[in-house]
Amino acid sequence: MAKRSFPLSEVYGLLEPGPVLLLTTAHRGRANVMTLSWHTMMEFEPPLVGCVVSKADFSFTALRLTRQCVLNIPAAELAPAVVGCGNRSGRDVDKFKAFGLTPLPASMVGAPLIAECHANLECRVIDTRLLNRYDFFVLEVIAAWIDPLPKAPQTLHHRGRGAFMLAGETIKLPSKMR
Amino acid sequence: MAKRSFPLSEVYGLLEPGPVLLLTTAHRGRANVMTLSWHTMMEFEPPLVGCVVSKADFSFTALRLTRQCVLNIPAAELAPAVVGCGNRSGRDVDKFKAFGLTPLPASMVGAPLIAECHANLECRVIDTRLLNRYDFFVLEVIAAWIDPLPKAPQTLHHRGRGAFMLAGETIKLPSKMR
Repeated sequence: MAKRSFPLSEVYGLLEPGPVLLLTTAHRGRANVMTLSWHTMMEFEPPLVGCVVSKADFSFTALRLTRQCVLNIPAAELAPAVVGCGNRSGRDVDKFKAFGLTPLPASMVGAPLIAECHANLECRVIDTRLLNRYDFFVLEVIAAWIDPLPKAPQTLHHRGRGAFMLAGETIKLPSKMR
Repeated sequence: MAKRSFPLSEVYGLLEPGPVLLLTTAHRGRANVMTLSWHTMMEFEPPLVGCVVSKADFSFTALRLTRQCVLNIPAAELAPAVVGCGNRSGRDVDKFKAFGLTPLPASMVGAPLIAECHANLECRVIDTRLLNRYDFFVLEVIAAWIDPLPKAPQTLHHRGRGAFMLAGETIKLPSKMR
C-alpha cells in the first residue's frame, strides 16, 4: 500500500471543504460501506468529527455497537461507487464486491480502509448524547492515512438527487486563520 | 431586494457540499458576522444544522443568549470579506463596514441577512446539550432566502490557512438518494 501516515493535526483541512465520504464499519465478521455527506469538524486536535448516521442505515447498528468506523474520502473517479453505495443497503448486497472497492485492514479499528480512496481516517465513537434525538455520533480520529499522489484529488460534494459538485481550483489568501 | 423565499425542504442541497458560511448575530443593538466552516446538516425537514461556534468567538455570547442567527452563503467574489471576517473580531471592529457587507432585516430573527450573499438561512437554536463540551449548537432553519441569479454561484470551501477550494462543475448521476 502506497498510503502514508497523515498528521492528525491536519485532518481538518481534509474534512472542512465538505467532501462526500464513504463510511466503513465491520460487525460480526461483516464489513459494510455507506455514503455520508452529513459531517462536520468539531475540534482540531485531537480531531473530532460529528456525523449523522441514520437509524435506518444498516451501518447504524455496527457503528453503535462496535463504536469504530473509518471515514474514507473518495475522488471524482469513484462517483459511480459513491452513488451505488448510497442507493443500496448492506442488508442486501456486499457493496465492496458490487462496486469494486477493496477493503484493507486498518491499524487501530476493526473497520476496513478502502484502498481506492485517497484518504482514510480511523475513528472511534466518543459521544452519543445526541444519538437518540438526531442519530448524531461524535467521532475521534485516531489514525489517518493518505496517498501522497495525486496532490489535489478532485473531491465530490453532494448537492442532492445525484448531483455532485466537483472540487475546482484552490485559491490562497493571506490569513491568520488555521 | 431581489431575494426570493427558498423552500425549507431544499436547504440541505445548499449546505451539504460544505460551503464556508458567514454567520450573523445581533445582541444589544449590535450586529456581528463571523466566518464558519464547521457545520453539518442534521435533518432534512424541518432543516436542522449543527455547527461549532467557539466560546472564544465574539459571536458565541450573542448566539447563546439570543438563540438566533442567520447563516449566509458567500460566493467566490466575497473571498476577501470571508477571510477578513475570519481574521478580525467583532470586539474590535464593525465587520459589516470594514468589509463592505450590507445588513438587511430578517423576517423571523433579530440577526441580519447579508445582502451580498446569494443565500440566507434564518435560524433559531433548538439544542445546546453539546454546548459546554464541544461549543456545538443545533439550529433549526425557519426561513430561507435566495437570489434567483446567478443559477450556480461559485461557493468557497475552506482548506485551512487561507486556502479555499472554489466550487467546480456539477455532474449528475442516476440516484434514488435525496
